[in-house]
Amino acid sequence: MSDWFCVYALRTDLIGEGDDIGEAVTAAAGRAECVGIQDDDIILVAESAVATAEGAAVHLDTVVPSEEALRYAERYHIEPRIAEVVLRESDRVVGGIPGFLLTLKNGTLLPNAGVDHSNAPDGTVVPLPADPDASAASIRERIRELTGKNVGVFVIDSRTHAMRLGCSGVAIGCSGPMAVVDETGRCDLFGRRLEVTKRAVGDCLASTAELLMGEADECVPAVLIRGTGIAIGDEQGIPSIDASECLFMGAALNADPSTFNRQHKPE
Amino acid sequence: MSDWFCVYALRTDLIGEGDDIGEAVTAAAGRAECVGIQDDDIILVAESAVATAEGAAVHLDTVVPSEEALRYAERYHIEPRIAEVVLRESDRVVGGIPGFLLTLKNGTLLPNAGVDHSNAPDGTVVPLPADPDASAASIRERIRELTGKNVGVFVIDSRTHAMRLGCSGVAIGCSGPMAVVDETGRCDLFGRRLEVTKRAVGDCLASTAELLMGEADECVPAVLIRGTGIAIGDEQGIPSIDASECLFMGAALNADPSTFNRQHKPE
Repeated sequence: MSDWFCVYALRTDLIGEGDDIGEAVTAAAGRAECVGIQDDDIILVAESAVATAEGAAVHLDTVVPSEEALRYAERYHIEPRIAEVVLRESDRVVGGIPGFLLTLKNGTLLPNAGVDHSNAPDGTVVPLPADPDASAASIRERIRELTGKNVGVFVIDSRTHAMRLGCSGVAIGCSGPMAVVDETGRCDLFGRRLEVTKRAVGDCLASTAELLMGEADECVPAVLIRGTGIAIGDEQGIPSIDASECLFMGAALNADPSTFNRQHKPE
Repeated sequence: MSDWFCVYALRTDLIGEGDDIGEAVTAAAGRAECVGIQDDDIILVAESAVATAEGAAVHLDTVVPSEEALRYAERYHIEPRIAEVVLRESDRVVGGIPGFLLTLKNGTLLPNAGVDHSNAPDGTVVPLPADPDASAASIRERIRELTGKNVGVFVIDSRTHAMRLGCSGVAIGCSGPMAVVDETGRCDLFGRRLEVTKRAVGDCLASTAELLMGEADECVPAVLIRGTGIAIGDEQGIPSIDASECLFMGAALNADPSTFNRQHKPE
């Protein structure tokens, strides 16, 4: 573990379809206080920029809502075509509040399956990148081509958590470092072995980056973190947790999962 | 918003009951790469160090479990005296999985009401500080006395979130900066007004600090963050969210709150 590290905003022009994120990030790092990219830097890129560059934006005038989408749209006051895109992007809908469906996607709970209306061109919505780990790997490879440096890359999103007010960062794609570090077997301050302690290093890095990315009109699609001492290996992906082992879902699903699911289906 | 900032580990001796956290932090900052404390620095202190210094540790041999605690202990495989301390510290128990009760405390969902077994002296457990905002204010005042500098102080904890593997940081006490920043009314990249966007700046700072604090035997009870550009006012506290407005709880409570609560009571 390092004793100190620094965090730099990487400012770019507005990212559009077909843009080369690796190149944009490399150029931005050259203009920033970090003066270019070094080995072991960690680069975090906003999922909306990645998805936009990959051409994932969906034009709403091409979307025809299904009956299921219309039912959810009415129940939770959501634009029916957006509800349709959310359904297509979800593995499962587990509930909702006005304006949002609570969805399961790739083993994670998230609002509207990550389909984003803010910072999307007019008349479009931007879903999550199709394969965020592959996106991270491809940005990492491009940076290696351009600079010769071995960095870690995360694709990150800004989300709320249960009973917390406001958004913080979560890692949704990873190439290089371990996104979750298991400290089981290490000792606490009193020399006793820790039973179970996993550190969500990827999420912590993502929240660090959020401090410079902002949510609104700052054009900071990426952040560079230097000096953490985090090892850059050849890891890929963000380990997820099974619902039965998750305290929050486990508690909710404990008694009778079918009851829990049934009560949130739209009529 | 700043373009870059730095993050420093503040290493101390093991914190014990009666220790002066403000003094320990100030001394540690003098030895660290940041070379002392400056105006507008943000200092984050681990809740376990704060609670220990405040004498909050509970000796388990003084605890007699109630019948309710015995029922929870059996159902969720928890040491009965720890279950009793958790019940005393909780506003409400909303469920559990083996080893943990899921509790509501001060408007936040958290495991075991924050009662910590790791990094607690043998035969004791350490609950959360009784009033984390007051703890933050008092550490802030002490640093001002010792250094003349106006800093922001957060008391932070390390927690899991729904369907995320591993712990990240959350802010539980605040003095100085705004812990949650409301960006409603600002514009997105395409000039449209954001409808609702709140940023959990306190939680993002806490996760940043977690990267240097670790979970195990590192003696890093505090972290200093310099250069964020976050304004240090005279804010106090962490705004919380009402269960009905929380996507996760709102979805779970949507259909019939009494059913949801009833099904998690122990037999």
